[in-house]
Amino acid sequence: MPDTQQTAKVALIGLGTVGQGVARLLLEQSERITRQAGRKIELIKAVVKHLDKPRDFSLPSSLLTDDLECVVQDPDISIVVELMGGIDPAGTIVNRLLESGKDIVTANKALLAEQGMALCDTARKRGCSIAFEAAVAGGIPIVANISQCLSANQITSIRAILNGTCNHILTEMESRNVDYASALREAQELGYAEADPTFDIDGTDTVQKLAILTQLAFGTRVHWREIPYQGIEKIDLEDLHFARQLGFRIKLLATAQLLGRELELHVAPTLVRIGSPLAEVHGARNAVDVAGDAVGSVFYEGYGAGQMPTASAVVADVIDTVVGRAALTFETLEPWKLLSHAPLVRDPAAAESCYYLRLRVEDRPSVLAEIAGVLGKKAISIASVIQPPTASENNGSVPLIIMTHQTTAGAIQEATETIAALPCLLSRGVCLPVLDGEPQV
Amino acid sequence: MPDTQQTAKVALIGLGTVGQGVARLLLEQSERITRQAGRKIELIKAVVKHLDKPRDFSLPSSLLTDDLECVVQDPDISIVVELMGGIDPAGTIVNRLLESGKDIVTANKALLAEQGMALCDTARKRGCSIAFEAAVAGGIPIVANISQCLSANQITSIRAILNGTCNHILTEMESRNVDYASALREAQELGYAEADPTFDIDGTDTVQKLAILTQLAFGTRVHWREIPYQGIEKIDLEDLHFARQLGFRIKLLATAQLLGRELELHVAPTLVRIGSPLAEVHGARNAVDVAGDAVGSVFYEGYGAGQMPTASAVVADVIDTVVGRAALTFETLEPWKLLSHAPLVRDPAAAESCYYLRLRVEDRPSVLAEIAGVLGKKAISIASVIQPPTASENNGSVPLIIMTHQTTAGAIQEATETIAALPCLLSRGVCLPVLDGEPQV
Repeated sequence: MPDTQQTAKVALIGLGTVGQGVARLLLEQSERITRQAGRKIELIKAVVKHLDKPRDFSLPSSLLTDDLECVVQDPDISIVVELMGGIDPAGTIVNRLLESGKDIVTANKALLAEQGMALCDTARKRGCSIAFEAAVAGGIPIVANISQCLSANQITSIRAILNGTCNHILTEMESRNVDYASALREAQELGYAEADPTFDIDGTDTVQKLAILTQLAFGTRVHWREIPYQGIEKIDLEDLHFARQLGFRIKLLATAQLLGRELELHVAPTLVRIGSPLAEVHGARNAVDVAGDAVGSVFYEGYGAGQMPTASAVVADVIDTVVGRAALTFETLEPWKLLSHAPLVRDPAAAESCYYLRLRVEDRPSVLAEIAGVLGKKAISIASVIQPPTASENNGSVPLIIMTHQTTAGAIQEATETIAALPCLLSRGVCLPVLDGEPQV
Repeated sequence: MPDTQQTAKVALIGLGTVGQGVARLLLEQSERITRQAGRKIELIKAVVKHLDKPRDFSLPSSLLTDDLECVVQDPDISIVVELMGGIDPAGTIVNRLLESGKDIVTANKALLAEQGMALCDTARKRGCSIAFEAAVAGGIPIVANISQCLSANQITSIRAILNGTCNHILTEMESRNVDYASALREAQELGYAEADPTFDIDGTDTVQKLAILTQLAFGTRVHWREIPYQGIEKIDLEDLHFARQLGFRIKLLATAQLLGRELELHVAPTLVRIGSPLAEVHGARNAVDVAGDAVGSVFYEGYGAGQMPTASAVVADVIDTVVGRAALTFETLEPWKLLSHAPLVRDPAAAESCYYLRLRVEDRPSVLAEIAGVLGKKAISIASVIQPPTASENNGSVPLIIMTHQTTAGAIQEATETIAALPCLLSRGVCLPVLDGEPQV
């Protein structure tokens, strides 16, 4: 059958790190990709901004073009892989490509998080598909697993480490005892962090990915800006030490939890119990823990970024598109369609958790009593306190670490606001949720 | 679109634990399954041996039948789920169903391992598909992940814990310090182990699953009896203690490793370094570590057996079959077809590994020298030795534990045969491979 079918012709838009990885797989592994797809897949154009830019992987010059039109206008090209990133002009370009009947494969999570709805509507109207395995968790095939492999389940929770840069930085801080600024600088020098790492470290990248997973797993359309998120910028080396003392590691965690007909969503550096699988995800790797009502839980771990892991996901999507699976999944899954059965996003203030508070307070009597008093008034119960032995050169200030029992995000926020106004408080420190914080019986 | 399409009619053969779980999902979660499949899926018959057998989940009596013919002859039934297990008569029945044009979903690893080739040939001839996600690793969707999600990769290795009973027993032995016989008895009492657990504990179940994964990941057709395997029957509590002392846990591991154009395959209780993901898989859970040349590695963990995790996999296959993805995958993947490009199975004697040897020897001078001499003659280098302090009541016998550096399965086997003939040897103990045994730099 394969040899009687037409070659599938593919174009690439963008030839950065991942683009070059995709080109390399499509060109160098043509034989095995043909085998997997049941017919030949041929990369025939790669649209770039600068034709002469030096690249690690050099394509035949006949493939390179800086003219998008020669892709849009070519009816032989059935699949376009968008890897330029960013929202503008990527959104306009993808929309034009869909309008001209091309199936799209993309790794662009920011674009999907912003314009997923409009783009999927266009795709449906034009009978095209959009595949986006590489947009979330890189080499871990979490999109296919949630959309297809776990389809018999009502997904009940997702807990995920989705940003390799943050996980690398936190791992380095903990394992090598370096502070946040040094770990970030080293990550940039090693190429693990971008020159401008803002969207990685402030949680934007993670929350955009969570919005996409939420859409897939629950059918709930939520804009990433509606989800509370915080990054790792305020995590101090001493937080990692105190967390460890309490039996936890700190991970930047994306959480989606179904509670009845409501969905709790947030992204935050979270204390995760040492020994649990999420706590043991080190370096630039990502992980996703998915719970479903039939399957119980499935845990996935792998490289969340990097040239070839991401290219693996992109090329799997190209193969799926050629085979026809992508169209079937797109049709039945109806991504970003307004669905009446989808759970609603819960008021973030109602989210329940134990919390870790690190405050810097005056080193004088009755400070703990004042702070405990504020928590008590909000009915927040204290599970444990660490007040490290005072060093002689403390300048009258000491850290105070409080672990609370289960409370709500709203209550803890009000309490920390009140505490921030106390004269004894020298700096606010951090307030982090604790996953499965109550002692296990 | 969904409402204009015909209802997909499904029959079940076998209504044991998993069958009841599948029936429950199909009947109770009909709405969400319809949503995932894009059209209604209706369970219309369940074929059982005994109509009156009491069952935990009771089906409407109109669905129950003991007459297979009413499924075979019903042209409205397009999908049949085979959950009777075993090879005979399951093989004959599945073949008849395929001949009458039914798509098959099965969890029957033994049947696939024995007759996968013939059944897939029949399916191809009749234009039907066979889906078998539930046959390997239960709730972990490893079949779809290898067949589809990682399709851009040349898979280079698979290391997997595929039998929940064995993993449960080993976990209990280690964590509660109970011996093998007690742990097995408890597992049977708790329902984790079958009344006759032979195929679980002797490695048969694991090696059959490995044969299926080998077929999927490498296209290599190998009968499970051609793969060297051993079970956990000879693992003594002291092996777990000595392994721990050396920094390892013992797991029943299925291994497939691509070496050039050859494939190394085996199943054995294996020493796995504590802290590595496979070593941290506890209780009845399964795990699969897959390496691919693009993706690096992806690690999967979940429930490998049990009613609802297995039903999750079965129903995902039913949905895939209705959507049409199963047919596309079956067509392009060509399972059990003779493929010219597939790697050949390597001579098992050539497999390289470090080994853990536990021997029971006479408690007298020069015994270690004699044994070390035998190993030396086979060019096997010793990495470490544990000879525990002699207890007074040792009856003249002591355990001797030797960790070797890298050697071949052939050399270690010859050496242990020679050692077995030494007068100082009182009992042979065990010889187990060590995963990544050489000290890490």
